[in-house]
Amino acid sequence: MSVIYDRVALIGLGLIAGSMAHAMRRAGVAGDIVGTARSAETRATAQEIGLCDRIVATAAEAVADADLVVLAVPVGAMAAVAEEIGPHLKPGATVTDVGSVKKAVVEAVGPHIPAGVHFIPGHPLAGTEHSGPRAGFAELFDNRWCLLVPVEGTETGALERLRGFWEALGAQVEQMDPEHHDLVLAVTSHTPHLIAYTMVGVADDLRRVTDSEVIKFSAAGFRDFTRIAASDPTMWRDVFLTNKDATLEILGRFTEELFALQRAIRTGDGDQLFDYFTRTRAIRRGIIDAGQDTDAPDFGRGLSRAQKAG
Amino acid sequence: MSVIYDRVALIGLGLIAGSMAHAMRRAGVAGDIVGTARSAETRATAQEIGLCDRIVATAAEAVADADLVVLAVPVGAMAAVAEEIGPHLKPGATVTDVGSVKKAVVEAVGPHIPAGVHFIPGHPLAGTEHSGPRAGFAELFDNRWCLLVPVEGTETGALERLRGFWEALGAQVEQMDPEHHDLVLAVTSHTPHLIAYTMVGVADDLRRVTDSEVIKFSAAGFRDFTRIAASDPTMWRDVFLTNKDATLEILGRFTEELFALQRAIRTGDGDQLFDYFTRTRAIRRGIIDAGQDTDAPDFGRGLSRAQKAG
Ligand SMILES: NC(=O)c1ccc[n+]([C@@H]2O[C@H](COP(=O)([O-])OP(=O)(O)OC[C@H]3O[C@@H](n4cnc5c(N)ncnc54)[C@H](OP(=O)(O)O)[C@@H]3O)[C@@H](O)[C@H]2O)c1
Ligand SMILES: NC(=O)c1ccc[n+]([C@@H]2O[C@H](COP(=O)([O-])OP(=O)(O)OC[C@H]3O[C@@H](n4cnc5c(N)ncnc54)[C@H](OP(=O)(O)O)[C@@H]3O)[C@@H](O)[C@H]2O)c1
Repeated sequence: MSVIYDRVALIGLGLIAGSMAHAMRRAGVAGDIVGTARSAETRATAQEIGLCDRIVATAAEAVADADLVVLAVPVGAMAAVAEEIGPHLKPGATVTDVGSVKKAVVEAVGPHIPAGVHFIPGHPLAGTEHSGPRAGFAELFDNRWCLLVPVEGTETGALERLRGFWEALGAQVEQMDPEHHDLVLAVTSHTPHLIAYTMVGVADDLRRVTDSEVIKFSAAGFRDFTRIAASDPTMWRDVFLTNKDATLEILGRFTEELFALQRAIRTGDGDQLFDYFTRTRAIRRGIIDAGQDTDAPDFGRGLSRAQKAG
Repeated sequence: MSVIYDRVALIGLGLIAGSMAHAMRRAGVAGDIVGTARSAETRATAQEIGLCDRIVATAAEAVADADLVVLAVPVGAMAAVAEEIGPHLKPGATVTDVGSVKKAVVEAVGPHIPAGVHFIPGHPLAGTEHSGPRAGFAELFDNRWCLLVPVEGTETGALERLRGFWEALGAQVEQMDPEHHDLVLAVTSHTPHLIAYTMVGVADDLRRVTDSEVIKFSAAGFRDFTRIAASDPTMWRDVFLTNKDATLEILGRFTEELFALQRAIRTGDGDQLFDYFTRTRAIRRGIIDAGQDTDAPDFGRGLSRAQKAG
């Protein structure tokens, strides 16, 4: 593959930026990768593992002469970073981000982008529960979606270039408007995360009652929740604070349905439970058919145990 | 390994019984495995894949001369099966079950077990979202827990034999009383399943609004829920109907905490969210340290994608 951006600046060096660095190298689409992070510790680690071609101390320094600038910090930190880099952006450069919420980022970053610089918000729908500069890997975006959320007046050329870049990193690209993005993600990601955090919190309270049994006997259901609830607290705090409306809307619907099922349990209405549990199977089928998850039982965990045992 | 029970009868031939059949053969602990299931179709499939040494048409027939009888049907079907087999059980035989709820099974099955037959309820904490006679595999119980719930007056010899049997199938065995079992499982399995079903149900409602986007963009969080919510509707209806009190108790706590977090989102209390999300990480760590789950990012899904890509 040939170079798409001569110089790419990564602001923030966590799971997503790190994976982008690995994937850019695999694809050969960046001439030169410059990175920076808030803490000296993260910058030192990135240096040590050779995550980028060059690590610099400030975001302002990083964006100098960059053709693509990627904001890969928590959503709540985007405004301050944008304000810092605004005056140093090269005319004709593209600024994008990878934040999990889009309307808030458009509002926080947009005002700091000078005329002559393209601002194209984005969100790769790929992640793990790990974070930090060592968590990234080149395959993270393979066959995953990356949603681009162009603001009014985005130049087609700049948009197509960014699309080609993400495709080279392994992703499939789709466009969406910010409000719609935030609603869809509230359903597929944000509310499920809040629910998982809550359920694990409840178990933690009960741990004092049931000792460590909750951990010991965590198979089936609960341990899947604990994986989700092990995600970075800062990232998720920012997601809920900045995607408040859509999250509260979906939470409202969730609570309504939960109460209906709770009532069915209380009154012993087996038919209602059975019908509800039958309806939800079709969605799983759809996800597997769409290639968005494995059909291996228990995500293939059983399989890998078998291999270990064998 | 040497034979522990000369003849084992499996009543019900789904995921759990099927996995037991495979694991019994791997360990060589059963002289002879006889199986039966409600439908002719399941019996024919079991016959075709050679799941047991012999498939018979009725439970009464299956238990004749069996040293161990395993009830592996949904919890709500246990009473009728116990009533059917009661008169046909061999003196000195052991009857156990694998139901996900224990207090209700003790009450439903106990009265049908004649004097001279050992009744030792059990529950292997292992499963996948798949079901039926083709879903089983020998490794399902490896390094998983099997909880035995002996009723009053259980003979030590019979109990130790059943413990040895489950250990030969790969499991670690622990004893628990029925009420405590049902509470712990309400936390680690039953309530998480209800919540997952609910969240997927909400997404299904919204699907009419957001088209198939919920499926398409299901990465991160939601698709884990869909796996849980793809589990067998009959099994789960019965679990909630028979473990009503503990489930409603945990659901009540869950709703309280969810409302507190919802309020924190509404009022923008980032500190409360951050603290809550930090606390829950420790539990994940505990589960991984206890060997109950993989530490591979995203359950190793990313890894298997990488291997496929590579
Ligand atoms: N993880 C996912 O599953 C996922 C998926 C899609 C999108 N995203 C989005 O991607 C972005 C980055 O997430 P990540 O998972 O890569 O996070 P991460 O691994 O935790 O890394 C975050 C990076 O941002 C820096 N940072 C944190 N707070 C900052 C602040 N106040 N000012 C400046 N820099 C700050 C950190 O610097 P230090 O290391 O020096 O603290 C670190 O380099 C977030 O907006 C998130 O919403 C995440
Ligand atoms: N799946 C799990 O994750 C898991 C884990 C631990 C314990 N358990 C417990 O294990 C038991 C079996 O679960 P499974 O996953 O093996 O289920 P499964 O794969 O769905 O198999 C259930 C078996 O029970 C039979 N059956 C269903 N309804 C019946 C009825 N009314 N009367 C007589 N037989 C009936 C079925 O017969 P047909 O095939 O002929 O319909 C089938 O052979 C349940 O009590 C469940 O709570 C399940």
